[in-house]
Amino acid sequence: MGKRDGIGIGLLGFGVIGGAVARVLTQRAEVLAHEVGCPVRLRKVLEKDTSKATASRMDPGLFTTDAAEVLGDPQVDIVVEALGGENPAYDFIKDALGAGKYVVTCNKEVMAKHGPEFASLAGERAVDILYEASVGGGIPLIAPFKQALLANEISAIHAIINGTTNYILTRMASEGMDFSTALGEAQRLGYAEPDPTFDIEAIDPCYKLTILAMLAFHTLVRPEDVYHEGISRLSSRDFRYARELGYEIKLLAIAKEKDGSIEVRVHPVFLPEDLLLAKVDGVYNAVQVEGDLVGRVLFYGQGAGPAATCSAVFADIIDVGRRINLGVGLSHELKLDASKKLKSISEIETRYYLRMSTVDRPGVLAKISRILGDLGISISSVIQKESDVSADAAEIVLMTYPAVESAMREAMSEIERLDVVREISNFVRVED
Amino acid sequence: MGKRDGIGIGLLGFGVIGGAVARVLTQRAEVLAHEVGCPVRLRKVLEKDTSKATASRMDPGLFTTDAAEVLGDPQVDIVVEALGGENPAYDFIKDALGAGKYVVTCNKEVMAKHGPEFASLAGERAVDILYEASVGGGIPLIAPFKQALLANEISAIHAIINGTTNYILTRMASEGMDFSTALGEAQRLGYAEPDPTFDIEAIDPCYKLTILAMLAFHTLVRPEDVYHEGISRLSSRDFRYARELGYEIKLLAIAKEKDGSIEVRVHPVFLPEDLLLAKVDGVYNAVQVEGDLVGRVLFYGQGAGPAATCSAVFADIIDVGRRINLGVGLSHELKLDASKKLKSISEIETRYYLRMSTVDRPGVLAKISRILGDLGISISSVIQKESDVSADAAEIVLMTYPAVESAMREAMSEIERLDVVREISNFVRVED
Repeated sequence: MGKRDGIGIGLLGFGVIGGAVARVLTQRAEVLAHEVGCPVRLRKVLEKDTSKATASRMDPGLFTTDAAEVLGDPQVDIVVEALGGENPAYDFIKDALGAGKYVVTCNKEVMAKHGPEFASLAGERAVDILYEASVGGGIPLIAPFKQALLANEISAIHAIINGTTNYILTRMASEGMDFSTALGEAQRLGYAEPDPTFDIEAIDPCYKLTILAMLAFHTLVRPEDVYHEGISRLSSRDFRYARELGYEIKLLAIAKEKDGSIEVRVHPVFLPEDLLLAKVDGVYNAVQVEGDLVGRVLFYGQGAGPAATCSAVFADIIDVGRRINLGVGLSHELKLDASKKLKSISEIETRYYLRMSTVDRPGVLAKISRILGDLGISISSVIQKESDVSADAAEIVLMTYPAVESAMREAMSEIERLDVVREISNFVRVED
Repeated sequence: MGKRDGIGIGLLGFGVIGGAVARVLTQRAEVLAHEVGCPVRLRKVLEKDTSKATASRMDPGLFTTDAAEVLGDPQVDIVVEALGGENPAYDFIKDALGAGKYVVTCNKEVMAKHGPEFASLAGERAVDILYEASVGGGIPLIAPFKQALLANEISAIHAIINGTTNYILTRMASEGMDFSTALGEAQRLGYAEPDPTFDIEAIDPCYKLTILAMLAFHTLVRPEDVYHEGISRLSSRDFRYARELGYEIKLLAIAKEKDGSIEVRVHPVFLPEDLLLAKVDGVYNAVQVEGDLVGRVLFYGQGAGPAATCSAVFADIIDVGRRINLGVGLSHELKLDASKKLKSISEIETRYYLRMSTVDRPGVLAKISRILGDLGISISSVIQKESDVSADAAEIVLMTYPAVESAMREAMSEIERLDVVREISNFVRVED
């Protein structure tokens, strides 16, 4: 059934991911040829570091330090971008699509920032850009939105899509570690970078959620539209209260659509402990999708690592390769509907967990309750503990019923002004 | 990009599933047309019960009681089979493929028994048969094996793919119910049939595992190759011991490949309680796949129900519809390798849980241990309890290290012949 005698791959970047992709392309060449319908060969590799070419034991003639030699090679049909980061990946992808080449990328940042532009450029040139590896490693997450779930109106995505923070939170929950100790452990084990900002401040999951939300809701989302809060404010006390109240604490990426409005946010949440998502521990990722027909489905697996990423890149190469071989171009065109409204964080409605340090005197809770009540916020449960008798200090923990965030913010600033309240130690949103 | 001005659907069966498919085809016609590239219309519906046509408020001219009118209609490009059961579905599907029509089915039995025949028939006619809805309702399970996981060598599938039994086991575990009470509850709630044999004797998951194993290992598997044991032997005592030992009890469908040999079996297992799969409760399904690149991935969701099934049927229609519109035919050809050996149950190697009723006397455990030891089976843990002092009865529970099943069978028959052993009350395999 093949129309072609071969398909050529141009690889951008020969680091950990790129090197693994090159190896798998060689090792599994037979599977690839069978699935695509013709042989698929690596034609050119862009790598600035010439020592990597030597160390690879691959044909040195494949390597170049000049991107134009890959992007301009007529034997290259598919450009696999494994550089990461916004630049120069952005330019290279634009050039590749502009030259009528298909693109497969594992780059969340460039897809979150420029995905819609790439998609329309690809559409103009009747090619395509695939990015299964950009979210959740080898877990099939992008493909389901393009086919398996298309019958559904998606109402919500709840995702654990940052392994570093999930590892840290798991250690804090299971061993009562404080944040900095758990972070240190994660760094020692190579799960967190020396500079962990990108993960612990939830920038990485913002990019991934941007990509998933566009697919699920067919609306334009930019990374800066995603509200995000990291995990460094969480203390071991919060984990103890969470357990007592029947919750786990997770850094959740949340996207919801209701009545034509979209909300997209990444922050720590209290998640009921009996949900399967709450049981996803360690460096694993999981994405839960709710559709009106399918109900609640969940996809789980390793969210990172060169082998898992390769698995996804390979799948995308097969998809694109089949289409090139059959001469059919684009299969799923993402139409973005600009009419949907994006909610700001102050407009969301959710439940809250609030932990406060107060003086140890009667009537404190009444004052707090009054402020909340006046703003229409009801309390669903309270834990009050004498934390330090000698210091005249008590700790009050509240869970609220659903409230609008702006009202909750106002309540918190009024509560902080009460002379009986020393501080609001933490507040965490609750997902049910 | 469309080459066609329309694609026609012929629907076989207008029961709960078929009716839901017809409704979704109408309600989501716009999405379908956008995704496929041309309108997709329901052209004919086979339904013996003419009252259903009237009740549907659909155009009565669509309905027929004669299958030939659907299968022979030149306006029908895709036949959607929603009859269930082996016959007459088998004949209808063969006729449809023979007539050069694409087939989408939700029928696990006919696919497990005749899938390879259908695939080769489809190949001859350059059409295809898709069956995403045959396993796990709307959870994308078939599609990943055809694309997302293709780079991987799959080593194992562990699946909870029968909602009825998982519901019963969940109630037994969480509430200490005995089997018949939990079954009664499941029947009352409509989760179990009045005659529950098909589910509780694990026939249903055998069909589903047959389908998954062929996809994962590219080897011919017939339903009768799948060893199966139901859940009726499990007692509330087993659940108490499981908890004490750190396990959950699940009816697991297991398929493994090792050194060119395949094992396929469905039976209750002890599953370590910290595995995500062990936490899948109620009527939910989950399939865990292990691949050499992707590691362990898990797909979770509702395994049944008309809406979830529709979601999968719709996805298959989009897949086939796109290909018809583009004129490209078959995308993934399943090649079955006949050289792989299927292990019998006596050849498998696993750990065992063994619960015995014995006389309450010193030396009993020594006698049992000797039999096991002589057969090369080591004990990993023992629980011994006086269950009834007046009756001179004790209960001994053993967990073994991995042993070959034939040795374990021999050990059990020798243990049962010991005069100090009253009975082997139960034995359950353990998966780690």
